[in-house]
Amino acid sequence: MSLNIPTTRVPRVVIIGGGFAGLELANKLNGQNFQVVILDKNNYHQFQPLLYQVATAGLEPSSIAFPFRKLFQKQDNFHFRMVEVKEIYPEKKRLLTDKGELFFDYLVIASGAGNNFFGNANIEKYAYPMKSISEALALRNIIFQRFENALTSETIKEKDANLNIVIVGGGPTGVEVAGALSEMRNKILPKDYPEMDFKTMRIILIQGDKRLLSSMSEESSSKSDFYLKSMNVEIFYNSKVTNYDGEHVYFNESETIPTKTLIWAAGIIGNRIAGLETSCYGQGGRILVDQFNACIGHSQIFAIGDIALMKADEKFPNGHPQVAQTAIQQGKKLAKNITNIQKNEQLLPFKYKDLGSMATIGRNKAVVELTGWKFQGFFAWLVWIVVHLRSILGVKNRFVVLLNWIWNYFTYNLSLRLIIKSKDTKND
Amino acid sequence: MSLNIPTTRVPRVVIIGGGFAGLELANKLNGQNFQVVILDKNNYHQFQPLLYQVATAGLEPSSIAFPFRKLFQKQDNFHFRMVEVKEIYPEKKRLLTDKGELFFDYLVIASGAGNNFFGNANIEKYAYPMKSISEALALRNIIFQRFENALTSETIKEKDANLNIVIVGGGPTGVEVAGALSEMRNKILPKDYPEMDFKTMRIILIQGDKRLLSSMSEESSSKSDFYLKSMNVEIFYNSKVTNYDGEHVYFNESETIPTKTLIWAAGIIGNRIAGLETSCYGQGGRILVDQFNACIGHSQIFAIGDIALMKADEKFPNGHPQVAQTAIQQGKKLAKNITNIQKNEQLLPFKYKDLGSMATIGRNKAVVELTGWKFQGFFAWLVWIVVHLRSILGVKNRFVVLLNWIWNYFTYNLSLRLIIKSKDTKND
Repeated sequence: MSLNIPTTRVPRVVIIGGGFAGLELANKLNGQNFQVVILDKNNYHQFQPLLYQVATAGLEPSSIAFPFRKLFQKQDNFHFRMVEVKEIYPEKKRLLTDKGELFFDYLVIASGAGNNFFGNANIEKYAYPMKSISEALALRNIIFQRFENALTSETIKEKDANLNIVIVGGGPTGVEVAGALSEMRNKILPKDYPEMDFKTMRIILIQGDKRLLSSMSEESSSKSDFYLKSMNVEIFYNSKVTNYDGEHVYFNESETIPTKTLIWAAGIIGNRIAGLETSCYGQGGRILVDQFNACIGHSQIFAIGDIALMKADEKFPNGHPQVAQTAIQQGKKLAKNITNIQKNEQLLPFKYKDLGSMATIGRNKAVVELTGWKFQGFFAWLVWIVVHLRSILGVKNRFVVLLNWIWNYFTYNLSLRLIIKSKDTKND
Repeated sequence: MSLNIPTTRVPRVVIIGGGFAGLELANKLNGQNFQVVILDKNNYHQFQPLLYQVATAGLEPSSIAFPFRKLFQKQDNFHFRMVEVKEIYPEKKRLLTDKGELFFDYLVIASGAGNNFFGNANIEKYAYPMKSISEALALRNIIFQRFENALTSETIKEKDANLNIVIVGGGPTGVEVAGALSEMRNKILPKDYPEMDFKTMRIILIQGDKRLLSSMSEESSSKSDFYLKSMNVEIFYNSKVTNYDGEHVYFNESETIPTKTLIWAAGIIGNRIAGLETSCYGQGGRILVDQFNACIGHSQIFAIGDIALMKADEKFPNGHPQVAQTAIQQGKKLAKNITNIQKNEQLLPFKYKDLGSMATIGRNKAVVELTGWKFQGFFAWLVWIVVHLRSILGVKNRFVVLLNWIWNYFTYNLSLRLIIKSKDTKND
């Protein structure tokens, strides 16, 4: 089998993964003297910051998914292949995919991070993560399926287990999904299900740390806590989920909550690809890189984004935060450095520039931290909207997302509460 | 198990299926003295006339799916349950679903029609139908998966089988999907896949009859033939597909076409529910009804829409066309008649009013027949757009569909060419 990528005179840069990091790198290499090959198991880039809105029926999946082929329609000597990378052979400068082998001059691993269930097989089996559009859609389907099942439940216990939703993890994803679910419960569900009393529905956020959004300031943490509690989200701090059997969450030794829907937003781990020595990996399944994002011991293999662990940036001795900004900045810098290698020019060390962070909890409720400036509430929420709208790819998508948001703001009543069951593809 | 529908003093009308027929009936019974229960296996109404645009990446599924709960938010004594009806017990006036039993005063079967593979197990196994949103999405995914696979095909034979698409059935669905695929091939795919020569891609329409759109006039048939051929669709008339093994379509005794994608739009059959005597059924798996849509021999069980077969309307001795208009008109008339039964007033026989029919083949290309007026081309295409936009439920959906159409008209370049793989729901 072969990937059928034509050989050209210019060096071939193979990028594994078209997330924020890989996409930025590919864009910046455009017009330079390279053949660029992007490999991804999906045919689209996903805008992860808004996955929680797909899961909570606030946005269509297509609004935050962008087909790579459309993004790169106008780039020369660019090739996309929808494949899964199976193994890297660093010595041979080749890699193996499910559709054949491929030679590279430069390899950039931007495979991102997946869900970390910390080895708990039960949680992995029963909990719903939301790190991808497929996962967010599965979560949307199951949330609404549970409400339907609650209506035909025979016991109060069964009804409660169908209604209650437990979210594990108090980072931005956990906070945002808890807020969105709470707004849905308070405003939308009583209209959709007039027969049902949603006052008994519990939305519970379990956080391992002593505060929410622990990468932000204590001010933002306490404001998020205030917002969520005002929306009737129950929060458990310093709490550790020990087990989940699909019916009950067990945490803090002796506590249990009945729920059929556990949302897992508690941790991530690097998406590992076979072939690199164990010594290449650091904590969190991340690939150790030098200040130029080169994998230790491999001058033509790089790692960027969530999968990369750089300890050389003195302000971040334990690695950079695994967020979009790090990915984008590393992709941009690596494009420059690969070009410099070709020109025999000096490489530039990566320095992370913290542009701030933000999270939205509900309408008119957000926390924003820019360098030296913290604010919350309505204005923060507007800033959050503008920043996210600007980041979405595609004019039409931006427009549709904005339309959905405006519509939802005034009506609390989008018509996306669909349970679209999947059909398996055939003879494939 | 129980469906937990409260008992009230007014008679209970149970409607199986929320398609055009069931929805119209439920709407018209609103405000009358009934308890209305809609049962459907999906939680949304689907706008079938535009399924082909979901399959060909022209519209998001959410634009043509409308959650029942939202549609009926403001109706009193209305209940929706997402269940599958397993059996009807006419004598007991009860029915069995996968979530328990239910009593009815009036039962209306509006379960519609599904795909008819005419007993060919291979075709059923390998072909892609598009009678539902789930099926249309599966088809969208597989079409774009095939193009990706074509890029990494090792032989020309394999590449051809990945690129070629064969559509069986020359009714409106077959004609519309053939036209949409052809426009995609001619205008969009060469931009998305600059490496691929789409001139070798064949789009083939196999029609059993001697002309397309055989329910319309010969003028419309020949114009559709002209349009499709001008867009490089190959059409085989008087042809019967005998087998399909997932790699080759066999038809007309000796002819074969290599294709991994066979779209089945060749026939429908009533979605049968157990419990009615065999004598209740006529041809096409349809339920025989009298002029008031009552099932023969069952004065409180009715059938409307695609599943109903009424031979009493003298202009349609073999039953009415299985189209949206029949379904809507029957739903409306039955609402009136059920009300009349309650009031001991006389029943009104159903008379089908043909409002015309239309099909669109491509941009600026449609055929329209209104009573005594036939026209084709750009104006027909505009009429088609207006009629379909008006029929879509929901202001926001209408707006988004219009936006997509305008965008597509000017850019030929929506970003919906996504292969969103399904994740199974867990512990359910």
